[in-house]
Amino acid sequence: MTSSAPVTRAYRRLSVEQRRAQLLTAALDLFAHRPPEDVSLDDVAEAAGVSRPLVYRYFPGGKQQLYEAALRSAADELESCFAERHPGPPGERMARVMDRYLAFVDSHDAGFSALLRGGSAAESSRTTAIVDEVRRAAADRILRDLGTERPGPRLRMTVRMWIAAVEAASLMWLDEQKRPPAPELRDWLVDQLLALLAATGARDAETGRLVGALVAQEPPDGRVGALALRLAPLLGAGEGVS
Amino acid sequence: MTSSAPVTRAYRRLSVEQRRAQLLTAALDLFAHRPPEDVSLDDVAEAAGVSRPLVYRYFPGGKQQLYEAALRSAADELESCFAERHPGPPGERMARVMDRYLAFVDSHDAGFSALLRGGSAAESSRTTAIVDEVRRAAADRILRDLGTERPGPRLRMTVRMWIAAVEAASLMWLDEQKRPPAPELRDWLVDQLLALLAATGARDAETGRLVGALVAQEPPDGRVGALALRLAPLLGAGEGVS
Repeated sequence: MTSSAPVTRAYRRLSVEQRRAQLLTAALDLFAHRPPEDVSLDDVAEAAGVSRPLVYRYFPGGKQQLYEAALRSAADELESCFAERHPGPPGERMARVMDRYLAFVDSHDAGFSALLRGGSAAESSRTTAIVDEVRRAAADRILRDLGTERPGPRLRMTVRMWIAAVEAASLMWLDEQKRPPAPELRDWLVDQLLALLAATGARDAETGRLVGALVAQEPPDGRVGALALRLAPLLGAGEGVS
Repeated sequence: MTSSAPVTRAYRRLSVEQRRAQLLTAALDLFAHRPPEDVSLDDVAEAAGVSRPLVYRYFPGGKQQLYEAALRSAADELESCFAERHPGPPGERMARVMDRYLAFVDSHDAGFSALLRGGSAAESSRTTAIVDEVRRAAADRILRDLGTERPGPRLRMTVRMWIAAVEAASLMWLDEQKRPPAPELRDWLVDQLLALLAATGARDAETGRLVGALVAQEPPDGRVGALALRLAPLLGAGEGVS
């Protein structure tokens, strides 16, 4: 309604919810690009164009409360990256998930890095719980997307292991000035998921059936076929061992 | 020299180094089996059979200093698990490394879990640095053991990703009352390393050569051959795609 009013004049006109959202957006933006140690309450106030007491009115717990609220909001955004609504071969669907995930990492680089490396003063049992909840939710989404609602322990563990590997890769990616380029990293990470599932599937019947079903949904010239073709000579399949 | 004297009588006879080592051993034993929050300086004093002031004389920084010293000692022990001195096929050597690693995780269960989950009050930038140093050292050992002194970024990243996956698997293993049995988990984790290397090798020439060299060192009925045999039908190699 007041969208034509300049931002500075809107100062007092925001509702409680709008003001809270505005402060959170400013905080999230700051915490995304700096370690929490390098963000002060004054920075948030300045970025939002408000006074420090006003920030305290909305976040009486100060910086820690703002940090945790920003983290919760970022966690929701990250979780939503794992929701893939478009049909298609599983490898393509997973590639789209990883595109969104890497875009998130890219746009929250320093904050993502500080959070996952640990040892920050802003880390608490609450922030750890939020991170762990994202990991669980991501695993659930992926498993559901792969067609399993109630996975056995090996299959679930494999997906959780892959998520841990993806986190480690993301941190190294940030350390290496975002090299290799995101689309290359994405393809590589999707390959790693397939490889981990296949290795587990060689020992675990449920995972073996899942991999079989995934392969059946892939076009002959799709990701899985291409990976299998490149794996076969490496592992010596078809030569000495078959 | 005084080995026949009862422990209680040895109280004042230990050298500074011996006393420090004794306190550290007591602390390590406590921190291995409980989260740091559940260990007090009195617990350490009691376990070592000494007074609380004596503990403070050796560790003026109190519990945090003891925790970090115990962590450093555990880190050295963990790093040494990754040194494999006996010759043999790479898969067997890696399996022995993982036997030692899982024995370490088994004997430091609650402490390992608390440390890697994060969010503990005892966590600091120093403890985080110690953990990260172990990860780097383990990756270096593995890479050297695989025959590469100066790995390229993809190969190094793959090994670091596997280490992250192994950590995640270890935490889940502890959560699930150490199921599956350690030898089964060990074989599975070694398979996962091979699978990750093979998937990277399908895109990265250096890793591809490494996997080729590893396969060449394996007996035809060894781990790699067995895994390749089980992977081939799962990935459809030899059927539609070849």
